[in-house]
Amino acid sequence: MMLAAAVSAAEVPVTTVLVVLAAILIAAKALGELAERFGQPAVVGELLAGVLLGPSILGLVDPGLPVLHVLAEIGVLILLFHIGLETDLRRLLSVGGAAATVALVGVVLPFGLGYVVATQLGLPALPALVVGASLTATSVGITARVLADLGRLQERESQVVLGAAVLDDIVGLIILAVVAQIVGGATLSVGSVALITAIAFGFVAAALLVGRLAVPPVFGALARLGSEQALATFALALAFLTAVLADRVGSALIIGAFTAGLAFAPTVHAPAIERGVVRLGHFFVPIFFVSVGAAVDIRTFGESRVIITGLALVVVGVVGKVAAGYAPFWFKGRKAVIGVGMVPRGEVGLIFAQTGRTAGVLDPGLYAAITFMVIVTTLLAPPLLKRMLGPARGRPSGDRPGELVHEA
Amino acid sequence: MMLAAAVSAAEVPVTTVLVVLAAILIAAKALGELAERFGQPAVVGELLAGVLLGPSILGLVDPGLPVLHVLAEIGVLILLFHIGLETDLRRLLSVGGAAATVALVGVVLPFGLGYVVATQLGLPALPALVVGASLTATSVGITARVLADLGRLQERESQVVLGAAVLDDIVGLIILAVVAQIVGGATLSVGSVALITAIAFGFVAAALLVGRLAVPPVFGALARLGSEQALATFALALAFLTAVLADRVGSALIIGAFTAGLAFAPTVHAPAIERGVVRLGHFFVPIFFVSVGAAVDIRTFGESRVIITGLALVVVGVVGKVAAGYAPFWFKGRKAVIGVGMVPRGEVGLIFAQTGRTAGVLDPGLYAAITFMVIVTTLLAPPLLKRMLGPARGRPSGDRPGELVHEA
Repeated sequence: MMLAAAVSAAEVPVTTVLVVLAAILIAAKALGELAERFGQPAVVGELLAGVLLGPSILGLVDPGLPVLHVLAEIGVLILLFHIGLETDLRRLLSVGGAAATVALVGVVLPFGLGYVVATQLGLPALPALVVGASLTATSVGITARVLADLGRLQERESQVVLGAAVLDDIVGLIILAVVAQIVGGATLSVGSVALITAIAFGFVAAALLVGRLAVPPVFGALARLGSEQALATFALALAFLTAVLADRVGSALIIGAFTAGLAFAPTVHAPAIERGVVRLGHFFVPIFFVSVGAAVDIRTFGESRVIITGLALVVVGVVGKVAAGYAPFWFKGRKAVIGVGMVPRGEVGLIFAQTGRTAGVLDPGLYAAITFMVIVTTLLAPPLLKRMLGPARGRPSGDRPGELVHEA
Repeated sequence: MMLAAAVSAAEVPVTTVLVVLAAILIAAKALGELAERFGQPAVVGELLAGVLLGPSILGLVDPGLPVLHVLAEIGVLILLFHIGLETDLRRLLSVGGAAATVALVGVVLPFGLGYVVATQLGLPALPALVVGASLTATSVGITARVLADLGRLQERESQVVLGAAVLDDIVGLIILAVVAQIVGGATLSVGSVALITAIAFGFVAAALLVGRLAVPPVFGALARLGSEQALATFALALAFLTAVLADRVGSALIIGAFTAGLAFAPTVHAPAIERGVVRLGHFFVPIFFVSVGAAVDIRTFGESRVIITGLALVVVGVVGKVAAGYAPFWFKGRKAVIGVGMVPRGEVGLIFAQTGRTAGVLDPGLYAAITFMVIVTTLLAPPLLKRMLGPARGRPSGDRPGELVHEA
């Protein structure tokens, strides 16, 4: 069976991936539904499934596996595309002032507090800078998913949180670029920072404008020619391409996918596109959250220095974002909900930590403290929001809008 | 932006994969619906989309890309799982004698004829053996997809074709193992061939038995505890694991996935599982067929030796399988439909060719001739079947059983 063995050897990656996928799907669904039994959003169960399957405990899921990374990315893109499809841009803009204020304060305050705490703990300026930066960006994926799990995505407070989370992701990417220049030893020019900023915001505006002009005629013609399924497939493909475009101009994949969703949202085809995307999300979205969980190595949490630094960062991270929720003093609505909604850090915080470690700026203990902050803020916010907002708004099961994020 | 550039560099594979996926989805849907306009099954359009995107013409899709390979494998597994879910094992066994006869004659005749033609064309025994072997296995994926595209999966002739195609895949894998031993210079023992054969057939029987005993109680409990979506996800995860198990014992991934579908088919949960799987198939299945198309390099078809050998193999391949369709002389039904249904070779034929080329037994011209035979038999059968069976049985659009393969 030498040749058969050779064929098997060539297929080893496929079988490995299939086993890993099966483990992810089973653990995510089982712990997701268990979390709901305990009155928690399903995403909490999926993140814990990741911790369980990851290198800290079972070692079944290696988040560095390239195929898994791609599938997880597709998952978060489908999630953000779907969130964009459910978002009314006018309603988002109507709370735009509040969202921008929350985003700005929610970036400046944690960054400053984090820097101060880090230097107080005896860190030099450069690692303190990276620590501060890693506290800035709310995970829009986790926040939106929690709000959708609770059936509250359409409320005014949720719209502020969503808008602010998208904005601080954009700001976070600008900070990442700037911090990278400083870490790299480059001198910082105001012009280059302004250019990065202009590109990041200009992309969203340009994509929305093109989308608004081009989508209705093009998809009207497609709807006459093809099936509903073809329409949904084209829309998803365009969301992928918009995401890639966003990445190429210096923004982020998820911002592009969200923007594509925003562009399709007001068209008559949005419900058909959502139906096509929801079931795909059931498969792909848990892969993303399990990967985020698996990226956290809880074995490093045993050292007292990691715990002390980590807890300090948690306090700073929570206080900074909750205070930001109260910043738009004119906004009529529960500001505590906004603040707590901004608390979860996620993939962007981990990217900062990873970047700092790769560049040699963060030692392993500091890296572990940041991942500790990420996992605690992420797991803290959902039950708090749930307490503040009350039980999940019941939605009938089925292919309804929101089901992806509600039940996945 | 040094660090940001580093982050982008790490993400290059993701963006590349996203662009490739977008191209695949758009081209597959566009050419698939175009094929249906011309009265052809959608799968013909998807295969041609693969040729178009592949290295021969646009060079956008490299079927050797590992991530793409995994996604394509997931696609064919979902397809075969879905076909299994739609298959009534008792009905399949009721035509079991006819199917076994078609499979056996359909393996022996093309193998023998191919060997004779190859030696007549002046080839030594070893490459002639590989050429013969590459003619044996009908592509169960393509055949099942075409029959489903035409809405004929439940007819008696289709059941014979399906049963025979699954059987000759199992036989094909045994031949692959045997040919591999010969190519590797090993002496062939009757005992080892018997063992391979027993394992290949024993796996299906054992998996079905375990499935029949374990699925109803386990999934009954799951249905009481969890959502319909969780049920479908568990079933798909189990199909992946059954596929891996099949591969490990020396059978094939697709046989495992099909067997898992057969095991779930008679349970009350089959419709819920199908609904969960169909939409996933819309995404994954075209990736498989586009990959099959992209694996064919039509630039090599220009040489006269390739064309002559290729055409000879096409004649032998068609005659051998059509004759096999008439072998079960007692079967009441259109035997020509069975024969033509067995004509398409696909992934298994390409695996033989690849194996022979990797082992140095096939020169590039011979390899090209085999891929020519694969693409021609694959593209020949759908329109012929369509002519013989008449227009597609209309099915309403939606998440109905069969929609995956009918409309994907």
